[in-house]
Amino acid sequence: MDKAWVVATLDGIARFGKGERGFSRLVFGEAEWGAVEYVTGLMREADLAVRTDAFGNVIGRLEGRESGASVVATGSHVDTVPEGGNFDGVVGVLAGLGALMRLKARGLLRHPVEVMVFRGEESARFSIHTMGSKVMAGIASVEAWRKLQDHGGTTLAQALAARGLDLERIPEAVRRPEEFKAFVEMHIEQGPVLEEAGIPIGVVEAIAGPVRLKISVEGTASHSGTTPMGKRRDALVSAAQVVLAVQDEAAKRAERRIVGTVGVMKVHPGAMNVVPGRVEMWVDIRGIDAEDVAATARAVREAAARIADREGTRIRLETLSSDAPVPMDSDVIRTIEAACRQVGVAYRRMPSGAGHDAMNMAKLAPAGMIFIPCRQGASHNPDEYAAPEDILTGIDVLTETLAALAG
Amino acid sequence: MDKAWVVATLDGIARFGKGERGFSRLVFGEAEWGAVEYVTGLMREADLAVRTDAFGNVIGRLEGRESGASVVATGSHVDTVPEGGNFDGVVGVLAGLGALMRLKARGLLRHPVEVMVFRGEESARFSIHTMGSKVMAGIASVEAWRKLQDHGGTTLAQALAARGLDLERIPEAVRRPEEFKAFVEMHIEQGPVLEEAGIPIGVVEAIAGPVRLKISVEGTASHSGTTPMGKRRDALVSAAQVVLAVQDEAAKRAERRIVGTVGVMKVHPGAMNVVPGRVEMWVDIRGIDAEDVAATARAVREAAARIADREGTRIRLETLSSDAPVPMDSDVIRTIEAACRQVGVAYRRMPSGAGHDAMNMAKLAPAGMIFIPCRQGASHNPDEYAAPEDILTGIDVLTETLAALAG
Repeated sequence: MDKAWVVATLDGIARFGKGERGFSRLVFGEAEWGAVEYVTGLMREADLAVRTDAFGNVIGRLEGRESGASVVATGSHVDTVPEGGNFDGVVGVLAGLGALMRLKARGLLRHPVEVMVFRGEESARFSIHTMGSKVMAGIASVEAWRKLQDHGGTTLAQALAARGLDLERIPEAVRRPEEFKAFVEMHIEQGPVLEEAGIPIGVVEAIAGPVRLKISVEGTASHSGTTPMGKRRDALVSAAQVVLAVQDEAAKRAERRIVGTVGVMKVHPGAMNVVPGRVEMWVDIRGIDAEDVAATARAVREAAARIADREGTRIRLETLSSDAPVPMDSDVIRTIEAACRQVGVAYRRMPSGAGHDAMNMAKLAPAGMIFIPCRQGASHNPDEYAAPEDILTGIDVLTETLAALAG
Repeated sequence: MDKAWVVATLDGIARFGKGERGFSRLVFGEAEWGAVEYVTGLMREADLAVRTDAFGNVIGRLEGRESGASVVATGSHVDTVPEGGNFDGVVGVLAGLGALMRLKARGLLRHPVEVMVFRGEESARFSIHTMGSKVMAGIASVEAWRKLQDHGGTTLAQALAARGLDLERIPEAVRRPEEFKAFVEMHIEQGPVLEEAGIPIGVVEAIAGPVRLKISVEGTASHSGTTPMGKRRDALVSAAQVVLAVQDEAAKRAERRIVGTVGVMKVHPGAMNVVPGRVEMWVDIRGIDAEDVAATARAVREAAARIADREGTRIRLETLSSDAPVPMDSDVIRTIEAACRQVGVAYRRMPSGAGHDAMNMAKLAPAGMIFIPCRQGASHNPDEYAAPEDILTGIDVLTETLAALAG
């Protein structure tokens, strides 16, 4: 378990979904499936007991001394956004595997320890994030998920079926709180704080809750050559103003750690000689205070109403999801901090601006998160990078944290 | 040749490419191919000599009395934009066929008369408009067209090959000016002028020249949850400002008949949890005065430079095509006007804001255009409509125009 192992394992996963720009491993696609199979193979080589649940989440298990004792779990995901990096999620899976290999070498602990690969942490394909851990925590709705489809029109049920899985049977993957003692996820920070401060470990206090909106603008499609400027109801002209309103309302609240993003926009019919008649946008608003997030969403809604009024278009806002911020468990936080002192590295308590599987696992078990620095805070793009040394330090802290929790 | 024939023929063509919203007949696709085959069948039933050229343009011919006399031609197209209507182009093909059927019944004229179905008048698939008439006029560049591909990545050469045609051989479709005496195209106005004035015929004086730009914005893709507002280089936020700049610069010059449209926008990578790193836009600017169009394009370029500067993004503008306005032939104009008086209908001279195949045919022959009203000026959308009575009046005027030119 050294730097060479970290680099080789990262490289092994990097073989899947590498494109011209970064990595694209969308849940249940070829590349993601291959990467998970690869990790499953590593778990088997490490002599862990491996199983796959009804949603395709993979669980590698190291038995404990005490029969029937509750599980100390860790893990993350290997799926990516389109044109993303090879560290977001991956380092948590790799660190979990590395920590279990070390713990196994030390001899049995009292509690069993599990490393999990969750499916569909990224919302890029089905517009729902942390799917695998939602299923495990029993907060996925089969009824609602029957309607999910990707931008190509493939339903979640079809994507599962192509992998031999059955949407109707995913409740079989639900686990009970009594099964767990704790959950700890290691992850890159995906922000610039640790790197700028020169601190190797972040101990997460709370995970920000995203609100996701779909905004649809209806104008009138017409000929771009013969429709005078004064007679247009151009849906894209209204949509452009909505993009700037999201930007402005979030920027106004930047000091309160609010961020707002229009990440997806579709223009219909999408031809150079047609004034756009319809635009759909997907918006993500986050913060660590639920009221700030709600206030931002309200302000966007009001701005949209003013734009529609002025431009003669129709703008509808639909809330796709609204997650409250999730605090981490104070005992787990203290255990991570003690592990940092034991390893001899500096740490800082901090919030997580991004959502993580730990958010859902917190419903099953006292949960915590360990952040490691990443270069320039870059994430969800091809420049995403974490140094093998920093990953190793993370593995050191994760190993001692799991050992303390399971000992 | 009555209202029932007009309705039946429109309905026959309407069987191809009808979707949930309007008609989608993209050049060389199933629906467009089917519609052209259907019209070809009607030409054969009408006992015209039918041939297809090396680009797939279909030509139905009525021989003249004088062997070797130059051709009087008419025609238009049946392809549509995505979610377009069944009148743009279609009425010109239908009217040409109807006029030839009437002329045939009257007995031979001195000159042969041809009705043409041009391929790819709309730029929706390959970003080049009036492709078929460009080929015929000898102004298509095989070298440049080798690079053309649709938004799905199919090249023009592949689309042609799938139809048994060869891009390298399209120069065989070029015709010489000596072959032609005149070209007259009938078309719906695609604007509100004739309907609002209650005038059944527009006689086109000049066709506006479109300038087409591709604008690419490069920012930095990053995580939407963890990238603070002040540290973003969001390509979509810059692109939204470019959309509004195109709108503003065109609106400022609305009295000089300038129109400017962003019809296509693609946002990369296009995921809800990623700040957009790259946006591509396709822009269409038109007017009947070349200097006004150029001034608008310059103003958009300057605005883009200011936006890039302010936002820290990179914005590149590429001119895809730049067509000068094309005046119609004064003799053909006078012949159309005489035909209107003969038929006994009012007419008005007017410009065409949209591009048409007549623009390219004007390089081969003295050219003219006949406009008929369409409901509320709607075009390139599912509400596009022209009344059968107005189409019949157009056929009356076209018939007498062709008779006068070929007599």
